[in-house]
Amino acid sequence: MQFASDNTGPVHPRVMAALAEANEGYAAPYGADPLMDAVRARIRALFEAPEAAVHLVATGTAANALILGCLSQPWQTVFCARHAHIQEDECGAPEFYTGGAKLTLVDGAGGKMDPDALRATIGAEQSRGVHGVQRGPVSITQATEAGTVYSLDELHALTGVARDFGLPVHMDGARFANALVRLGCTPAEMTWKVGIDALSFGGTKNGLMGVEAVVLFDPEKAWEFELRRKRAAHLFSKHRYLSAQMHAYLADDLWLELAARANGAADRLAAALLGRGILPDHAVQANMLFAHWPRVIHQRLHAAGASYYLWSGTLDGDDPDAPLTARLVCDWSTPEDAIDGFAALFDSDA
Amino acid sequence: MQFASDNTGPVHPRVMAALAEANEGYAAPYGADPLMDAVRARIRALFEAPEAAVHLVATGTAANALILGCLSQPWQTVFCARHAHIQEDECGAPEFYTGGAKLTLVDGAGGKMDPDALRATIGAEQSRGVHGVQRGPVSITQATEAGTVYSLDELHALTGVARDFGLPVHMDGARFANALVRLGCTPAEMTWKVGIDALSFGGTKNGLMGVEAVVLFDPEKAWEFELRRKRAAHLFSKHRYLSAQMHAYLADDLWLELAARANGAADRLAAALLGRGILPDHAVQANMLFAHWPRVIHQRLHAAGASYYLWSGTLDGDDPDAPLTARLVCDWSTPEDAIDGFAALFDSDA
Amino acid sequence: MQFASDNTGPVHPRVMAALAEANEGYAAPYGADPLMDAVRARIRALFEAPEAAVHLVATGTAANALILGCLSQPWQTVFCARHAHIQEDECGAPEFYTGGAKLTLVDGAGGKMDPDALRATIGAEQSRGVHGVQRGPVSITQATEAGTVYSLDELHALTGVARDFGLPVHMDGARFANALVRLGCTPAEMTWKVGIDALSFGGTKNGLMGVEAVVLFDPEKAWEFELRRKRAAHLFSKHRYLSAQMHAYLADDLWLELAARANGAADRLAAALLGRGILPDHAVQANMLFAHWPRVIHQRLHAAGASYYLWSGTLDGDDPDAPLTARLVCDWSTPEDAIDGFAALFDSDA
Amino acid sequence: MQFASDNTGPVHPRVMAALAEANEGYAAPYGADPLMDAVRARIRALFEAPEAAVHLVATGTAANALILGCLSQPWQTVFCARHAHIQEDECGAPEFYTGGAKLTLVDGAGGKMDPDALRATIGAEQSRGVHGVQRGPVSITQATEAGTVYSLDELHALTGVARDFGLPVHMDGARFANALVRLGCTPAEMTWKVGIDALSFGGTKNGLMGVEAVVLFDPEKAWEFELRRKRAAHLFSKHRYLSAQMHAYLADDLWLELAARANGAADRLAAALLGRGILPDHAVQANMLFAHWPRVIHQRLHAAGASYYLWSGTLDGDDPDAPLTARLVCDWSTPEDAIDGFAALFDSDA
Repeated sequence: MQFASDNTGPVHPRVMAALAEANEGYAAPYGADPLMDAVRARIRALFEAPEAAVHLVATGTAANALILGCLSQPWQTVFCARHAHIQEDECGAPEFYTGGAKLTLVDGAGGKMDPDALRATIGAEQSRGVHGVQRGPVSITQATEAGTVYSLDELHALTGVARDFGLPVHMDGARFANALVRLGCTPAEMTWKVGIDALSFGGTKNGLMGVEAVVLFDPEKAWEFELRRKRAAHLFSKHRYLSAQMHAYLADDLWLELAARANGAADRLAAALLGRGILPDHAVQANMLFAHWPRVIHQRLHAAGASYYLWSGTLDGDDPDAPLTARLVCDWSTPEDAIDGFAALFDSDA
Repeated sequence: MQFASDNTGPVHPRVMAALAEANEGYAAPYGADPLMDAVRARIRALFEAPEAAVHLVATGTAANALILGCLSQPWQTVFCARHAHIQEDECGAPEFYTGGAKLTLVDGAGGKMDPDALRATIGAEQSRGVHGVQRGPVSITQATEAGTVYSLDELHALTGVARDFGLPVHMDGARFANALVRLGCTPAEMTWKVGIDALSFGGTKNGLMGVEAVVLFDPEKAWEFELRRKRAAHLFSKHRYLSAQMHAYLADDLWLELAARANGAADRLAAALLGRGILPDHAVQANMLFAHWPRVIHQRLHAAGASYYLWSGTLDGDDPDAPLTARLVCDWSTPEDAIDGFAALFDSDA
Repeated sequence: MQFASDNTGPVHPRVMAALAEANEGYAAPYGADPLMDAVRARIRALFEAPEAAVHLVATGTAANALILGCLSQPWQTVFCARHAHIQEDECGAPEFYTGGAKLTLVDGAGGKMDPDALRATIGAEQSRGVHGVQRGPVSITQATEAGTVYSLDELHALTGVARDFGLPVHMDGARFANALVRLGCTPAEMTWKVGIDALSFGGTKNGLMGVEAVVLFDPEKAWEFELRRKRAAHLFSKHRYLSAQMHAYLADDLWLELAARANGAADRLAAALLGRGILPDHAVQANMLFAHWPRVIHQRLHAAGASYYLWSGTLDGDDPDAPLTARLVCDWSTPEDAIDGFAALFDSDA
Repeated sequence: MQFASDNTGPVHPRVMAALAEANEGYAAPYGADPLMDAVRARIRALFEAPEAAVHLVATGTAANALILGCLSQPWQTVFCARHAHIQEDECGAPEFYTGGAKLTLVDGAGGKMDPDALRATIGAEQSRGVHGVQRGPVSITQATEAGTVYSLDELHALTGVARDFGLPVHMDGARFANALVRLGCTPAEMTWKVGIDALSFGGTKNGLMGVEAVVLFDPEKAWEFELRRKRAAHLFSKHRYLSAQMHAYLADDLWLELAARANGAADRLAAALLGRGILPDHAVQANMLFAHWPRVIHQRLHAAGASYYLWSGTLDGDDPDAPLTARLVCDWSTPEDAIDGFAALFDSDA
């Protein structure tokens, strides 16, 4: 009953096999390995973007922060959702990599930015001339930190606001596959066709050991990206082991299969909870859900071996009836019986 | 005949096996995995440093730059050898991670810093009060970029100078094992016992996929290190795969065995060249050597399939007799017949 | 009818005279001038803080940003009011000088931070361990950007929250004198006695040409401050001309006299407007006020030669009745007849 | 007998008068004052550069560091003379303002960069692809820190090297006037006509209180410069007092007159010393000279009230015969009798 995160499960066996296969003989370092050529070609084809610059890094924070470094100036501000990963969970990596840019938070329901709120927020910045920070990129998380997914129309509305102000758009796709599978569209449709300029294309949360692709649909900043990556110590000497993971991820649509499994597990969990009268806080559209129940129930669930994070409140406290919020995350490896067993803990006879 | 670098060879099979073994079930992320507890205990025991803070990162540049960030202030300067990796091969990562500290270069023979030169160089800095940058840490590379190894006495002389000025000392041990095997001393003797405050303990160049340990002998800055690592995007969510590599590396002294093999290969190569009248530029004490021969010979060697970097000059040029400098690096996997075959290319009948 | 800012008026004649007097012969540079010794002694006496470190800079933004650099780490966040000068009017100088710290905005009425909001906001930060930015200093603006003044009790409540979390407290005193005169307390009472650790002691907005004192009540970081100031290019070679201004400012309580004049002018303006039925948006406690009236009136006032900033809205627009907000600032030189003449413009026969 | 620096003397009376004159009534802040319009027009005319962007700051370090920030990327290195002010006397301001760029030192005689050395040094950088820092701007100090002046041919040779590598060129003209007067050429000839892209046009060392102009001959980065200046806290609210100084400086060629006086004083000092058999270390071409004599003489001179810096060695020491190096600087206010009196101290009967 492991629902703590999509970073606690194992690497998919086909990825492990690819690593073993890549471990033969000598290979050129620093991204000059032949597997990287194959990965680049595959991603360009997948995204229908033959000119795109494609690079690999090992963490999602590195992908996000390096891209924001390329898209921002130090005296600008990045627009993102109030609870975006870049705001809350990267210990200031965007500020570090951009040389001290700000993040300006945009409100909206369900973990999303609202287009009108985005327009108003951007409009309010840079009204002070040289005295205030200047408008910088818009960063959209797809799927969001709340487990919701922007529709193509919603993405289009956000990128339209950015375009009106002449601002570039980043997509934090740490859970890109989960969103794509839910929308049933093509990678191109969810990115450059709707106005995304640069993408953090996640793999780590979806069955890899630790690889994210950075896709710059406009390759103009490709060399700057490479210098930033090296300077940030994120260029791997034995790069073939990054390439091998991403290669296996994309082969035979493994990435889509794993995301579909994770989404399906979250759906099953949501349905099981709903059957017990528990309604998630947001629409369950990716691989996680948020829900609340009294502290005393949390304590019982944890005692029974369920593992998940409390998003608000703490297990210990005076009021057993206090409604705490849980975050439950599934990944490709979440067993169905873990879900069913977890849900059964809510039954009166549990 | 692959002598380009110690980052082009394969990962050792026991490390691959450890990764496969670690890939079972769920594990806590971000360094809270049980394997990391074992790694921490093992490194503390190995270094006879029960209080040391031990953390893992994936690249040597990250280890170096994060440590220098902890040991420096932005308005200080780091003292290092003229051709140190932190000066020449990290695209300014130390400057980035320190918030803009300088590097002041110290001369010496054989890729080493000379203690008298270090003393004179440190003395010359900070003579201008608030107007100049201030003295910061001393960074020593062991083994050096020239393939030489500081003796314990030499290390002691350098750290003594640093201590006289009250400066902390970093050791860039990307090839720590190669040096240790050559000196035949203990890890403690080559580090804190001789005055090293913080160590980049390399694994990547010696059979791992991509892991370096950071050892802070004084744990006071451990939490700062963790914040810097996270902020720099070098904290791995699926951390167990770093732990597993380092765990296998240290088990049954694999790390020493691999370094001994690499050193032995370089020794064999040096002997074979010497037998052809070619004297290396420096003492061959780790796993690489530098030597020069005419351009026309380089061209013949490359044509025959030998792979190595030219440290000065280029393959293409007008003068066939121009003496170019080659760098030849061995690792644990370098086959003896590759060495012998390479040397044979120098024979008149080759 | 100049109410645009307290930076558009002339320098007080006694300050000009002091500059002329200082312009005799040779003087040691970089703060070693004898006048600086006198300034340091005077400020220490004034603040009853014999150990305080005292330094001069030429702009308020420099004072704020340098202090925040000393009090923060790059991975921390600074807590300040939503419309603080450091957030809105310094083009990211705090981020630049701190190496990329965040600013976290705290709500409250009348341009102030509310103590409960401060406690809740601080409490919410750093709940994510190494993943989120860490709690840093609290920055209090006195007088506020809204022209209000914290009472000593209000200051005490804010610093108490900071102390509960172990956080240092900065006071942005660009209009320190205006607040002090209003409260009628001593400089010590409004600073270290109520828990302020470091002060930007403004002079520029109150009759000087361009000088602010930085007062570090705990001198531990004095040398770091000097290095940061030099590195930021804010150490003046011909420093005597900064010293001379501050010396004249403090002599014979000129600073208090000028602030009292500016406050009195704002009071007179507020009374004159109130007599015309116009109520300021906030209590008028320093040297400025905010008020709103229809666009058509703004247009008439500007046409008549009145000069002030619109804090919301623009002179040009479709709706003549749209209520726009004006900011009106007085300084020591604001003539009474300018105030009366301005108010008279509201009269029906104007 | 004050020869310590050109920052210890008084401000010229005409500059003081201009400040007093500027202190009338209200003036728009932040560079929007009418005097700044006049300054901009005057500098553009003077430099025959009608498109140039012109801005004022208060310190030479600010001018240099802001310009280098505009001309560099953080992953580049700036090429400058070994003892350039930006290397030795700015406490790392260039590193701070560029976001961590390096400085690479170029050798040459007489405090100058040698063009061949510059070519070799630039050539050696960036030979390591993404692994090393990239080539950035060339910074030329005119007059040099050694009191010498590049001829137009020498400048042309240096800028030619930069142009061959596609690098922009900065001139640190803290003593621009001194050099210009010596060469007897026009400002245009010594700058953009010979390939200078951006100029720190010094005033502080030549009779002003604290003003330097930044001249960007290509105005493309003008807005970026303004944002960097504001973010660095170097935009003055009461800007008219910077404008007034620069305006008076350029009126009636005061700046040239003052530089001619300072140069003349240095010439007189050199001649007087030469008459006593003391040969300066470098050609005396601007307003300072370096010379050496035994410690015992230094002690006698200081005891007699002469004030100057020792550039090597210290007054206190065991060996009375040790030859220490003195730096002697003149400015517009250096009296002839101080020079003559100083020289007379060397006479046997002194």
